Amino acid sequence: MLKYQQIAAEIEKYIEDHALQQRDKLPVLEALMAQFDVSKSTITKSLDLLERKGVVYQVRGSGIFVRRHKRKGYISLLSNQGFKKDLENSAVTSKVLELDVRKPTEEAAYNLNIGLDTDVYYVKRIRYINGKALCVEESYFTKSIVPYLNREIAEESIFTYIKEGLGLKIGFSDLYLKVGKLTEEEAKHLGLNSGDPKLYAESIFHLTNGEPFDYSQIAYNYEDAQFFLQSNHI
Amino acid sequence: MLKYQQIAAEIEKYIEDHALQQRDKLPVLEALMAQFDVSKSTITKSLDLLERKGVVYQVRGSGIFVRRHKRKGYISLLSNQGFKKDLENSAVTSKVLELDVRKPTEEAAYNLNIGLDTDVYYVKRIRYINGKALCVEESYFTKSIVPYLNREIAEESIFTYIKEGLGLKIGFSDLYLKVGKLTEEEAKHLGLNSGDPKLYAESIFHLTNGEPFDYSQIAYNYEDAQFFLQSNHI
Repeated sequence: MLKYQQIAAEIEKYIEDHALQQRDKLPVLEALMAQFDVSKSTITKSLDLLERKGVVYQVRGSGIFVRRHKRKGYISLLSNQGFKKDLENSAVTSKVLELDVRKPTEEAAYNLNIGLDTDVYYVKRIRYINGKALCVEESYFTKSIVPYLNREIAEESIFTYIKEGLGLKIGFSDLYLKVGKLTEEEAKHLGLNSGDPKLYAESIFHLTNGEPFDYSQIAYNYEDAQFFLQSNHI
Repeated sequence: MLKYQQIAAEIEKYIEDHALQQRDKLPVLEALMAQFDVSKSTITKSLDLLERKGVVYQVRGSGIFVRRHKRKGYISLLSNQGFKKDLENSAVTSKVLELDVRKPTEEAAYNLNIGLDTDVYYVKRIRYINGKALCVEESYFTKSIVPYLNREIAEESIFTYIKEGLGLKIGFSDLYLKVGKLTEEEAKHLGLNSGDPKLYAESIFHLTNGEPFDYSQIAYNYEDAQFFLQSNHI
């Protein structure tokens, strides 16, 4: 973690510890520089990062203000951490239905930018929040990048393993969302009825060098899946 | 528009004009500086903006690369422009069902941070893409910020009017997404059946000074509503 990222995390903690609300004003730049004992350029980078994350907004000539805390139970669409990180206060568990090495589907090969004869790890899981089924997830990991996976890892967080176990740097992601109707099989896994609404997400995760390594297709339980997104003036 | 924003738009146009694909490399910094005749700090700010917008990714020590163009027909979740801007190649039209000045609902008052006795413009519209109903939208605009609206404006883009007509600066937004079932009234407007899936979005738009001015509740047609989001390493 770079210095400005660390300071950003500390400012975020300061906001939480002081239970600051939307539109509450943060101390001025000079005060923040003194409080965290860093240069102006570091504090500016920290604040820019927090602004991009939707934690603060900066009003020219007026100051830095807090953005409202997200509603409880909503999953951030912008997190690159996998949703386990968003739902820290909930018990997230996974049941692994399938895990093997195979050839990708055409769709997976296309999205992972690999040939149809390239090995991938295929993982199919049901993910639960506090014991309730949140989603059915099918993931394809390029095996040349993620050379090993097992059920124990897949029952926990695959992303934590990829970052901490394999030392890979996760970069950007593409997310596509649609609404549809649950198939019979999905409904069975989620404890719902076939034809019930579903949120269908496809996501492609890339390393910082731009290589895609994970293509996932996720069907969410419509009763529990709630998402939020805080965006900035772009 | 600031210089770096203008250059960012030009680089984006360059990428489109040259039909560059995901992982194509952009010219090096020095070449871009020369091409657009700007300083290093300007080009760096332009590239950072494009990275946040999901147009490029930067690999340290290796260069600047293009991110894949979005799939066609998907609406960007990160755009602050209203979706008319995302669907530029489609004909977006609106039918105004209701438009009046009234008192806000409790929910609207809470999200707009105003009292229950404050006047708001209430607009209910069906929005169409190429003649097909995309969504039913109910919006509340704080009247002290948006002092005037009429049907003609609401049939076109309210956001264009707010920016260009009223000269207001639109800042950040909060978006909440859920999946549910269409009510009978929504289904009627969308040409679907009651109980069919819907994507339900709530959005709160703020001015750059942090004041919320628009709270909207939108029910999307599940057959046509597709969204995408490109995120970065945060």
